[in-house]
Amino acid sequence: MTQKHESTKLEQSLYGLMAYRELTTFERLSSDARFSPTLADRAALAKLAVTEYGHFELACDELTAAGRDPEAVMEPFMEIIDELHERTRPGDWYESLMKAYVLDAVSADFYRVAAERLSEQARLLARRIQELDEQSAWLTERLRADIDDERLRSRLALWGRRLLGEALTKARFVLDTTDLGALFGDEERKELFADLIRKHSRRMAALKLTA
Amino acid sequence: MTQKHESTKLEQSLYGLMAYRELTTFERLSSDARFSPTLADRAALAKLAVTEYGHFELACDELTAAGRDPEAVMEPFMEIIDELHERTRPGDWYESLMKAYVLDAVSADFYRVAAERLSEQARLLARRIQELDEQSAWLTERLRADIDDERLRSRLALWGRRLLGEALTKARFVLDTTDLGALFGDEERKELFADLIRKHSRRMAALKLTA
Repeated sequence: MTQKHESTKLEQSLYGLMAYRELTTFERLSSDARFSPTLADRAALAKLAVTEYGHFELACDELTAAGRDPEAVMEPFMEIIDELHERTRPGDWYESLMKAYVLDAVSADFYRVAAERLSEQARLLARRIQELDEQSAWLTERLRADIDDERLRSRLALWGRRLLGEALTKARFVLDTTDLGALFGDEERKELFADLIRKHSRRMAALKLTA
Repeated sequence: MTQKHESTKLEQSLYGLMAYRELTTFERLSSDARFSPTLADRAALAKLAVTEYGHFELACDELTAAGRDPEAVMEPFMEIIDELHERTRPGDWYESLMKAYVLDAVSADFYRVAAERLSEQARLLARRIQELDEQSAWLTERLRADIDDERLRSRLALWGRRLLGEALTKARFVLDTTDLGALFGDEERKELFADLIRKHSRRMAALKLTA
């Protein structure tokens, strides 16, 4: 078990990662929303983005409550997350939905596993961010609705693999270059990544796509 | 005030206009947020965008409560509002702030005056959308902070006039081409536009800019 004073700074780092990822996801998703095929889809994607902003605020609140400047704590994660977004720019509406479906879930899984090694407070925050059931249900339904088109299926399957690959690369980079790396030994890292991949495969299967 | 006021078709049109303008403003603002100079500014602009989304939801709720399909009611306003956004694409962060400062306020003024001719419920909704004091305070403060730069001042003064001009053109177009036109006789139109311009000048003066 980690020591109390140590875990606090580490917790803050996790909150910083959460905050920056959720803020940027808000920004990207809401920009993408404009290209939705119908007004109802625009509104739904906008709502999803607004939820991500809510997560950003939750993480920020923890940081300010701890007397930290959120900007400073987010800083180590900015380049990594920005690059993740740059390397996963959706080409259209479906890819945008899929990006939300895959990356939100992988991030939430990562938050949860990291939080488990920290504190009850961190676990609570991770759980609140993961409470995406309603939205994930909308995403699953919306993606399933069109996904019986064979060309779209194979394109989205490929895109899903690409998204996971980029996410795992960046997760490794986070562990290698920031203090969050201290949370996982070699074996635990392997387990972490195996777990992320397993859960991703299950989610792709829910869309009847090959992971 | 009646307990269960059934909204009229004209009220619903106003809600449709509100809904579409607020949704698109959410989309545009949140896209612009990414280009903010600091993370704190990004977060603040994102928060502003999220508030606009909240207004969209308020207006939509009225429509669904009345058994209307929001998409259908928004439809007559889409092209006008889209064009307003296209013709007022901010060139940078300041222009983006200024666009929010000017257009949110002019729109809220327009909603208010139209709602006054409709019902207590419409007035209530217009008032809730206008309750931007906190945000407008942030915008004013943020704009004032840098606006002593002389070149920026004259650029933003020009931009403010452009924004108002486009907003008034579109407001006229709304009155000419949709059923909302029925709310204003010739004299009342003149008063409406004089009122919009007067209030705008006051807001520009608050920034020490020439309207």
